[in-house]
Amino acid sequence: MKKIAVFTSGGDSPGMNACVRSVVRTGIYHKLEVYSIMYGYDGMIRGDIRKMQSHSVSNILQRGGTVLKSARSEAFRTKEGRKKAYEQLQSHGIEGLIAIGGDGTFTGAKIFFEEFGIPTVGCPGTIDNDIYGTDYTIGFDTAVNTALEAIDKIRDTAAAHDRIFFVEVMGRDSGYIAIECAIGGGAELVMVPETKTTIDDVVKSLKGLRKSKTSSIVVVAEGDEEGGAAHIMDKVKAHFKEEDKEFKVTTLGHIQRGGNPTAKDRILGSRSGMAAVEGLLQGKSNCMAGIINDKVVYTPFEDCITKDKPLSEEYLRLQEMLSI
Amino acid sequence: MKKIAVFTSGGDSPGMNACVRSVVRTGIYHKLEVYSIMYGYDGMIRGDIRKMQSHSVSNILQRGGTVLKSARSEAFRTKEGRKKAYEQLQSHGIEGLIAIGGDGTFTGAKIFFEEFGIPTVGCPGTIDNDIYGTDYTIGFDTAVNTALEAIDKIRDTAAAHDRIFFVEVMGRDSGYIAIECAIGGGAELVMVPETKTTIDDVVKSLKGLRKSKTSSIVVVAEGDEEGGAAHIMDKVKAHFKEEDKEFKVTTLGHIQRGGNPTAKDRILGSRSGMAAVEGLLQGKSNCMAGIINDKVVYTPFEDCITKDKPLSEEYLRLQEMLSI
Amino acid sequence: MKKIAVFTSGGDSPGMNACVRSVVRTGIYHKLEVYSIMYGYDGMIRGDIRKMQSHSVSNILQRGGTVLKSARSEAFRTKEGRKKAYEQLQSHGIEGLIAIGGDGTFTGAKIFFEEFGIPTVGCPGTIDNDIYGTDYTIGFDTAVNTALEAIDKIRDTAAAHDRIFFVEVMGRDSGYIAIECAIGGGAELVMVPETKTTIDDVVKSLKGLRKSKTSSIVVVAEGDEEGGAAHIMDKVKAHFKEEDKEFKVTTLGHIQRGGNPTAKDRILGSRSGMAAVEGLLQGKSNCMAGIINDKVVYTPFEDCITKDKPLSEEYLRLQEMLSI
Amino acid sequence: MKKIAVFTSGGDSPGMNACVRSVVRTGIYHKLEVYSIMYGYDGMIRGDIRKMQSHSVSNILQRGGTVLKSARSEAFRTKEGRKKAYEQLQSHGIEGLIAIGGDGTFTGAKIFFEEFGIPTVGCPGTIDNDIYGTDYTIGFDTAVNTALEAIDKIRDTAAAHDRIFFVEVMGRDSGYIAIECAIGGGAELVMVPETKTTIDDVVKSLKGLRKSKTSSIVVVAEGDEEGGAAHIMDKVKAHFKEEDKEFKVTTLGHIQRGGNPTAKDRILGSRSGMAAVEGLLQGKSNCMAGIINDKVVYTPFEDCITKDKPLSEEYLRLQEMLSI
Repeated sequence: MKKIAVFTSGGDSPGMNACVRSVVRTGIYHKLEVYSIMYGYDGMIRGDIRKMQSHSVSNILQRGGTVLKSARSEAFRTKEGRKKAYEQLQSHGIEGLIAIGGDGTFTGAKIFFEEFGIPTVGCPGTIDNDIYGTDYTIGFDTAVNTALEAIDKIRDTAAAHDRIFFVEVMGRDSGYIAIECAIGGGAELVMVPETKTTIDDVVKSLKGLRKSKTSSIVVVAEGDEEGGAAHIMDKVKAHFKEEDKEFKVTTLGHIQRGGNPTAKDRILGSRSGMAAVEGLLQGKSNCMAGIINDKVVYTPFEDCITKDKPLSEEYLRLQEMLSI
Repeated sequence: MKKIAVFTSGGDSPGMNACVRSVVRTGIYHKLEVYSIMYGYDGMIRGDIRKMQSHSVSNILQRGGTVLKSARSEAFRTKEGRKKAYEQLQSHGIEGLIAIGGDGTFTGAKIFFEEFGIPTVGCPGTIDNDIYGTDYTIGFDTAVNTALEAIDKIRDTAAAHDRIFFVEVMGRDSGYIAIECAIGGGAELVMVPETKTTIDDVVKSLKGLRKSKTSSIVVVAEGDEEGGAAHIMDKVKAHFKEEDKEFKVTTLGHIQRGGNPTAKDRILGSRSGMAAVEGLLQGKSNCMAGIINDKVVYTPFEDCITKDKPLSEEYLRLQEMLSI
Repeated sequence: MKKIAVFTSGGDSPGMNACVRSVVRTGIYHKLEVYSIMYGYDGMIRGDIRKMQSHSVSNILQRGGTVLKSARSEAFRTKEGRKKAYEQLQSHGIEGLIAIGGDGTFTGAKIFFEEFGIPTVGCPGTIDNDIYGTDYTIGFDTAVNTALEAIDKIRDTAAAHDRIFFVEVMGRDSGYIAIECAIGGGAELVMVPETKTTIDDVVKSLKGLRKSKTSSIVVVAEGDEEGGAAHIMDKVKAHFKEEDKEFKVTTLGHIQRGGNPTAKDRILGSRSGMAAVEGLLQGKSNCMAGIINDKVVYTPFEDCITKDKPLSEEYLRLQEMLSI
Repeated sequence: MKKIAVFTSGGDSPGMNACVRSVVRTGIYHKLEVYSIMYGYDGMIRGDIRKMQSHSVSNILQRGGTVLKSARSEAFRTKEGRKKAYEQLQSHGIEGLIAIGGDGTFTGAKIFFEEFGIPTVGCPGTIDNDIYGTDYTIGFDTAVNTALEAIDKIRDTAAAHDRIFFVEVMGRDSGYIAIECAIGGGAELVMVPETKTTIDDVVKSLKGLRKSKTSSIVVVAEGDEEGGAAHIMDKVKAHFKEEDKEFKVTTLGHIQRGGNPTAKDRILGSRSGMAAVEGLLQGKSNCMAGIINDKVVYTPFEDCITKDKPLSEEYLRLQEMLSI
């Protein structure tokens, strides 16, 4: 293998740049020519492909977002689109691919590999931490810390006014961000898609807590089965008398995706990038380079996409104990 | 004057604690006994009043929120409520009051003073910077910096996906936070209550910018005459073809109220607190201690409440020039 | 077991408060009476012991330092001092101890347990991550992120002036902070106690890098065998011609110990505190509750103190590859 | 005037990039061609001059350091060097200059203007705030906030161990950073070049404070007449018995120069850049564009360099009162 290419796809996450930098530099270290594909699968089809040097990735390690840009690609969902992408790679002599992204990215990579056979290794770049085959995804730690800083600020104002705050964090199918924010933020309650918490449960808990606490924070994962935070708040509020408490809601939104990556995400991005390059060189393909128990593990894309990654029971138990 | 009391009222803002600390310590320095009233006017009516020592305000300078808590008080809107409040103050021997808050707080203080004659000086504690009689309000600088950090993060993800982002910042009647965020955040457009910007203007600008910029940020003050950011985005979007651009909206919300105060807000809170104490000692009353052109100025509550504080023309012009 | 006590000892680290809070609340959850001992072993001897309630630990989760204070205790090094400490615990009816700290703390705890037999479990609270029996220590992640933010700032000024910067980070016997900062900060070189890097190696590397890089950062662990960063810089500088490069040094110092803990440290502190309480209840003693591969593990104090925790070879290799 | 050039010189400061961006964009807005000179006077002599477009300064507003780089220039101190610089500017058709920097930068600009007559306006870019003719310099607010965050962290560890900390902040000839850090950080004492504070004064104060405070922070400006913080601490320590207190020292150093600029510095840099461009167009020269009482003011370089900017008496008084 002489020439490889790297791209980012799907939602951006902090640490993707660290991963790109690592792919480029460890690739060059191993005597490879490394190319970047701009705008993910879309740029692959359009042939937006550039030769990278070591200095091309200078001073990006500490930046959020992705210098390779990201985009949705309807065309890549078609056989015809993928054929064009393949021809572009062929014309550049690309013999290996490194795909940085999440579920959707890996689904595309798997189909593409099975159709055209270009060896491909993935790196888990998504803030949601919902990928099987790695303890953490690149961007998760930053997203949690960003959300936590926001929750610290909200606690200031919640405490000043004796309010009950519902804070919605990201996580469409997964409560990872929510549970870490709840423990780290000292939230009184957490609502995640993985567990069933009814409105009645919430009402009962909050009424119980009122005896000992003047203000409360409820962390809600956006994908909770009871709906978003605003919806849940309205339903809970109906069970309280008006004068009882002031209820407020905040949706943290896109700030959780951006920002300078934390140490953990810079290191995870760097390790994962190196592991992807070395995996390709060792003949690995159709799999993702994750870190499990501090060791590099290659997991088939098939498993990454289809297998569940359950929330820690210990964390749920811990959150409950700490909120007394 | 021997005994004074301090309280916070209305929405909390970062730097209120610095102001409380300054009132307590400069009061003690000037041989006064200083009391705190908890929960604003509500606590005044209930007699929730405590003697403060120098160490009572240790380690609060750097904290957001207000250790004196804040609350709405329906009772204080009635003559009867205010009479109770007066009796509580009498029974504690309070001879002077320092009210930290915004418009609503000063309106209450003015009525109370005119009815019962207890000398009262205010300190401008609100993030909105909409108070006449001071260049800046306590909490404004922190709110702007918090919003700016959020906008920096959003720019990462906007740039990664070539998106147009509408970011709503606080400011019900005032575009101060919005204009500083727009200049400081390098926003392409800003929408504030003080100026008329139509949806057509926005559409035209964004279409013009598309030639030179791949992503754009529009900062919207919550009180803009065209509605909130989500509403504006929907109207703008209708003028674009679907494939043209991805539009996203984020409402920063309550995080702008909390957080450790910046240097500016700690110093402004401290100066304003000292000025309020020394103003009381010099016989000032029914007025606010603000800082104009770096000097302490006492402005009648009447003017603080009724006079307008216009946005800087220079800032609006600067924002426009910088967005080319 | 009915009554337990918790204390912090040795250098403070961010997350200690999260750990204290967790001990108190999980203890109460398990129907224990929980006491705090102020000022570590010194307070134990003086009997500075207080009953804790759930609300005693409100609003401390997010604070650096330790609300239980810490102090050196010469007296506890003597048999007589330890006897007094034992008598104080007896008089309060304390039947179990939780010691939060590092090597020195556990050495004291081990001797004390062997002499007087009060069941004791430790929690690893130190920024250095040099404790055997846990993947990470409480405070390490925060210290690395604080140092990294400082290095990001230094890179701004290094790049503006084409300088070579030597940055000294904490780590007397261990290069953990240094290696994570070097990878996360994109440092060109790292010097740690665990590996031998001569001045000649450094000179050679820096001269090699000058062809491709205009500025460089060298991260030095304070315990490196070649001396502190200032000393190393002077020796390196002697090998360059004066006009060649500007050399600068910065010692990050005590800022690495303080600050609000990161999500990781809040969670690790919370988990470790819960594990210590539940360990005591299960009859564990003379051991530390650490987290290895995301699972609670109890390691004898003897091993924590005497066994080495080597630096990751993969990390050293990664740092080298990424600095090209 | 058709063609102007901008450069940064002397120590870098956060907000310089905002200023460069503003010069480029407001210049283009006013139909000028704008050039950048890299590496200050050194690059001027070497002819390192580049044409700038609006997008050349995209995405730099929020970055510390200076994208135009900075360097010392021995050659510019000679008539011969300056003649070369003039010839380079002539050959590019540069008719106006904007110099971003401090005292040294303006001294060079003044001599150069007087010799060769190219109209030149300065922008005050230095963290020290020691320039006459502007209320604040670009970078000062960021430096203070960075130092303050460090002091907040140090207070955590000072409080945990009941220590006395000496913290050295930047300011060779000026106590501006020190006094704002002292008020904002709640320091017990401050030592600045502008006032005489003897070691005996410090010892007396600290002994007095010991009755009411368990830990203390002394902020020292690097240019204080009693020496640096380490030196002062040693002299103070000699007056205490060993067991009395633990003394520690920290020198914040270069981290104060870097980092993302605060809102204030981004806005000040932007305003000052616009004012410099519009000043040139109005025929101003040999002067600096500063902001006094929120208005643009042009002050002759001569005054900027030679006139003193005294510390605020009110601030010194406030600091003293608040430390009781």
